[in-house]
Amino acid sequence: MSFLSEHNILIFLLQLVLLLFAARAAGELFRRFKQPALVGEILVGIIFGPTIFWRFLPGLAVSLFPDNAIQYSMLETVSWLGVLFLLLVTGFEVEISAIWKQRRSSLTIGFVGVLLPMLMGIGLALLLPERYMVDPGRKLVFVLFMGTAMAISAIPIIAKVLHDLDILKSDIGLTIISAFTVNDILGWVAFTMVVGLATQQRVNWLSMLRVFGGTAVFIAFSLTWGRKLVNRAVKWINASWLPKPGSVLTFVVLLGGLCGALTQLIGIHAAFGFLVAGVMAGGAPAISERSRETISQMVYAVFVPLFFVSIGLRVDFLANFDWLLISTVTAVAIGGKLVGAWLGARMSGIPQRDSFAIGIAHTPGGAMEIIIGVLALEFGLINLVVFEAIVVAALVSSIAVGPLLSLALGLRRAFNALEFFLKDAVVANLKGSTPFELIGELCGSISEHEGMPGAAKACAAVRLREGIMGTGMEKGIAIPHARMEGLARPVFTFGRSSKGVEWNTADGLPARLVFLILTPDPDKDDLQVKILASIARVMEDEKARREMLEARDRKEMIDIFSAALRRDRMMRARG
Amino acid sequence: MSFLSEHNILIFLLQLVLLLFAARAAGELFRRFKQPALVGEILVGIIFGPTIFWRFLPGLAVSLFPDNAIQYSMLETVSWLGVLFLLLVTGFEVEISAIWKQRRSSLTIGFVGVLLPMLMGIGLALLLPERYMVDPGRKLVFVLFMGTAMAISAIPIIAKVLHDLDILKSDIGLTIISAFTVNDILGWVAFTMVVGLATQQRVNWLSMLRVFGGTAVFIAFSLTWGRKLVNRAVKWINASWLPKPGSVLTFVVLLGGLCGALTQLIGIHAAFGFLVAGVMAGGAPAISERSRETISQMVYAVFVPLFFVSIGLRVDFLANFDWLLISTVTAVAIGGKLVGAWLGARMSGIPQRDSFAIGIAHTPGGAMEIIIGVLALEFGLINLVVFEAIVVAALVSSIAVGPLLSLALGLRRAFNALEFFLKDAVVANLKGSTPFELIGELCGSISEHEGMPGAAKACAAVRLREGIMGTGMEKGIAIPHARMEGLARPVFTFGRSSKGVEWNTADGLPARLVFLILTPDPDKDDLQVKILASIARVMEDEKARREMLEARDRKEMIDIFSAALRRDRMMRARG
Repeated sequence: MSFLSEHNILIFLLQLVLLLFAARAAGELFRRFKQPALVGEILVGIIFGPTIFWRFLPGLAVSLFPDNAIQYSMLETVSWLGVLFLLLVTGFEVEISAIWKQRRSSLTIGFVGVLLPMLMGIGLALLLPERYMVDPGRKLVFVLFMGTAMAISAIPIIAKVLHDLDILKSDIGLTIISAFTVNDILGWVAFTMVVGLATQQRVNWLSMLRVFGGTAVFIAFSLTWGRKLVNRAVKWINASWLPKPGSVLTFVVLLGGLCGALTQLIGIHAAFGFLVAGVMAGGAPAISERSRETISQMVYAVFVPLFFVSIGLRVDFLANFDWLLISTVTAVAIGGKLVGAWLGARMSGIPQRDSFAIGIAHTPGGAMEIIIGVLALEFGLINLVVFEAIVVAALVSSIAVGPLLSLALGLRRAFNALEFFLKDAVVANLKGSTPFELIGELCGSISEHEGMPGAAKACAAVRLREGIMGTGMEKGIAIPHARMEGLARPVFTFGRSSKGVEWNTADGLPARLVFLILTPDPDKDDLQVKILASIARVMEDEKARREMLEARDRKEMIDIFSAALRRDRMMRARG
Repeated sequence: MSFLSEHNILIFLLQLVLLLFAARAAGELFRRFKQPALVGEILVGIIFGPTIFWRFLPGLAVSLFPDNAIQYSMLETVSWLGVLFLLLVTGFEVEISAIWKQRRSSLTIGFVGVLLPMLMGIGLALLLPERYMVDPGRKLVFVLFMGTAMAISAIPIIAKVLHDLDILKSDIGLTIISAFTVNDILGWVAFTMVVGLATQQRVNWLSMLRVFGGTAVFIAFSLTWGRKLVNRAVKWINASWLPKPGSVLTFVVLLGGLCGALTQLIGIHAAFGFLVAGVMAGGAPAISERSRETISQMVYAVFVPLFFVSIGLRVDFLANFDWLLISTVTAVAIGGKLVGAWLGARMSGIPQRDSFAIGIAHTPGGAMEIIIGVLALEFGLINLVVFEAIVVAALVSSIAVGPLLSLALGLRRAFNALEFFLKDAVVANLKGSTPFELIGELCGSISEHEGMPGAAKACAAVRLREGIMGTGMEKGIAIPHARMEGLARPVFTFGRSSKGVEWNTADGLPARLVFLILTPDPDKDDLQVKILASIARVMEDEKARREMLEARDRKEMIDIFSAALRRDRMMRARG
């Protein structure tokens, strides 16, 4: 086995330190201003790449980025690990069971939300002059690819935006995430097909059959028996003498590698295999949230930033700048997805206001659009000018979505959650030791008050909702909720469990403060979202949390919480 | 930027899946039989490398491991990340402050324990015929290297063995770990110097000065101001708006990369930089045990196994097998370290029996001996025959240490910890909210009984010991302890804290069951170790832990614990 030279390792470490530091710093700076980190990370790549650094300091650039295949392959390997792992952890956020339970809305929004922008992308590509194509003889592949690129959205961006707005765990958050999942899978399948087409030099029916048939079988198997097998394997690991969580981490990485190799063998890209592996691992209840977090944290802290930086290193963004193409592609990418998802939402009977929010939520292209752009570039489907337009469209749409969504949902306006707080139903000492038992106690306590639904009915609704997607948040908080037909007015209360109850949260902490929200169905003014966001925001305050946990009695807890809600409202009214 | 081809990625994924799966499975199988995982991982490499697979199935081997520099560099990059990260997390286990507080014994054992085996290694190398040398003209470098290789020990192996014997947190565990740290640092400094010598083609005083002076300045700075700066930087991150733990993870990886690049620039190997970075990060109180665990888990689950596998891929172990050399090197490697550390322990006034145990604990070469072997091979200091002998010596010594140490400490014999259990001092409801307060309550409770030391005196001793190295274990258990001059007989008791107290444990769980052990000083029969091991073993039983936490009163707690101790003793008497 040949050895990498000491000089290779030195240069690699220097590249690693410089790029990782700059990318992470820029990423966090962007995140601070509620912008996606990837925007900062890509900018750092542009600064250190051919666009600026290599142009103005070519001497220094050559010594830091020497033109040597072995050297390149080191950084490339790490950045490839970044993409593959990014798709793996993106898959974690996909909730197949949530889609199934909400199949009407998620399938309609997903399908229409992909179809419409895809048609618009195809239309755009047909209108483009031939100079934008790498090979005008393969116009079909180019046109189909542009359709796909305009239709794909990025789950991680929207999950982060919903999380920042404190509504990830609300019903509209759930609808958005499950529709996105369908969108993601459809978009990737379409892209995969395009790549399958592109790699066939001559159309050979047998090999085409292998690609399409293989993909269909792979997806069908993975999302049905595959998921069950994965869960059973992890259950076996958990019950065995193998050390936890190390063995589960290895298992998830192996699963990614295996699916990646399989998809490569089928003739589609390994990235799709990692995405599907992530979906399988994300849907396995036997894998704890904690294990997934360990992988996600390392991936986002080290590997993903290096991938986004490497994009800027590939392309001279100044030499390939075409403002007309960039603005057209951006407009189509945003407009197509917005209108498509909005239409899908309306078609599945969601009210106008929520449909609009869902449409906006679908616009960010983010990492997904960029990744398929990189792959298309690699396969020779597009040239650098088109690639740059796609990257810019992905960035612009990712930056815009947060502010737009917050406006659309009216979350900016001061809102008085106190009106709906049923103080008399607060429970100072919850006794149960499972989420279901705690939900039962809180529903029981609410049902004792006038105008409130019976305990059994409320309980069933909240538990059903909890079963679709857990409502445990970080820092020992859980906010179960449900919409109920015929409920007279929205109401919420809370209870405290001094011993804490395991709620499968991301930080692994047991839930000790549990809030329960009931809103009428339909919930025209999105009160559920607003109440939930208020509670989640107030509970981010460590002092309030601690005081509520240490309070001696019900009254003290109620006073502390009410005061915190009042402070929050005043601050928002002012700011 | 050039792209890795799709075929490169496919082969890489296939290698990854195959090697990672086999290595992890073999590693865990070995671990199950209380053997170091690295033995299994290296065996897998030997099976898949030139020794077996390439010899018997050359056709298949070429398609899975094609002879292509770019392809090699992908697997090599990941395996390099494995070594570098392994040294980083090894550094975590080094406790500079513990050495300083125990400086007499740790420095004496460390120095003598390196010097003696080094001299023996030098003697061995001088006696070796010239055919074992790569370049007989550079005999000096070869001889010095062999001295170093015979002197270096592996902290991770011994930490694991002590952990498996449940005595990592005992006083003898502390002495072993701090002496090992000195051993590690001295061994690496010596190796670094040898590499510095080796890379100078002609002895050039200026460049020699740069290497030695640079190394000295780097070490001196890192272990003094460097450590403080690191802690301050992390404190700043913790207090800032940056997301935790992601930013801390990035910081630690960056620190490794920076120190690695610095040491490369000085002219010594990047591996040493990562080790020192790990020491700095491990000693920073601002970095939580949890963040370090996240890195360690990913590193051990994915990257380290790939490094050990890659060793077997480098060498044909059959073609380079020399049993005479192997047995001589193994005997010298084990004997030299055993005698050296034993002598050092005796010189620092440690009783005969403990000194012998300390000597045995120093024998495993483990990963460290293998890593410097790999580097020496790369620098052309040794040939494949000598490399193989070093690897085998490292493996044999790592396999032998566990059983030998257990024998030497007499841990195999059934032991009745119940004799020393002061039932009347059990505290059902500890009130304090810091480790120091809880230690105070337990010492107070013990001091009320006849023949027991005053609360203030006991408290001071236990807190002093706690300050040297925390005694928080996993699963909510802590076992503070101390040796006290003039104590009539060993004694232990425990208390329960229903709210739990933050004790900076590896799994982040607050301590809820706190045991306090006092033993006379000197502790001739190693009763502290035996009591501590018994308690730790009994508390691994989840049922006993839960029942003690849920017990209604003192009496019930005492009964449950006594019964568990009795069961444990009977099982050991039988088995």
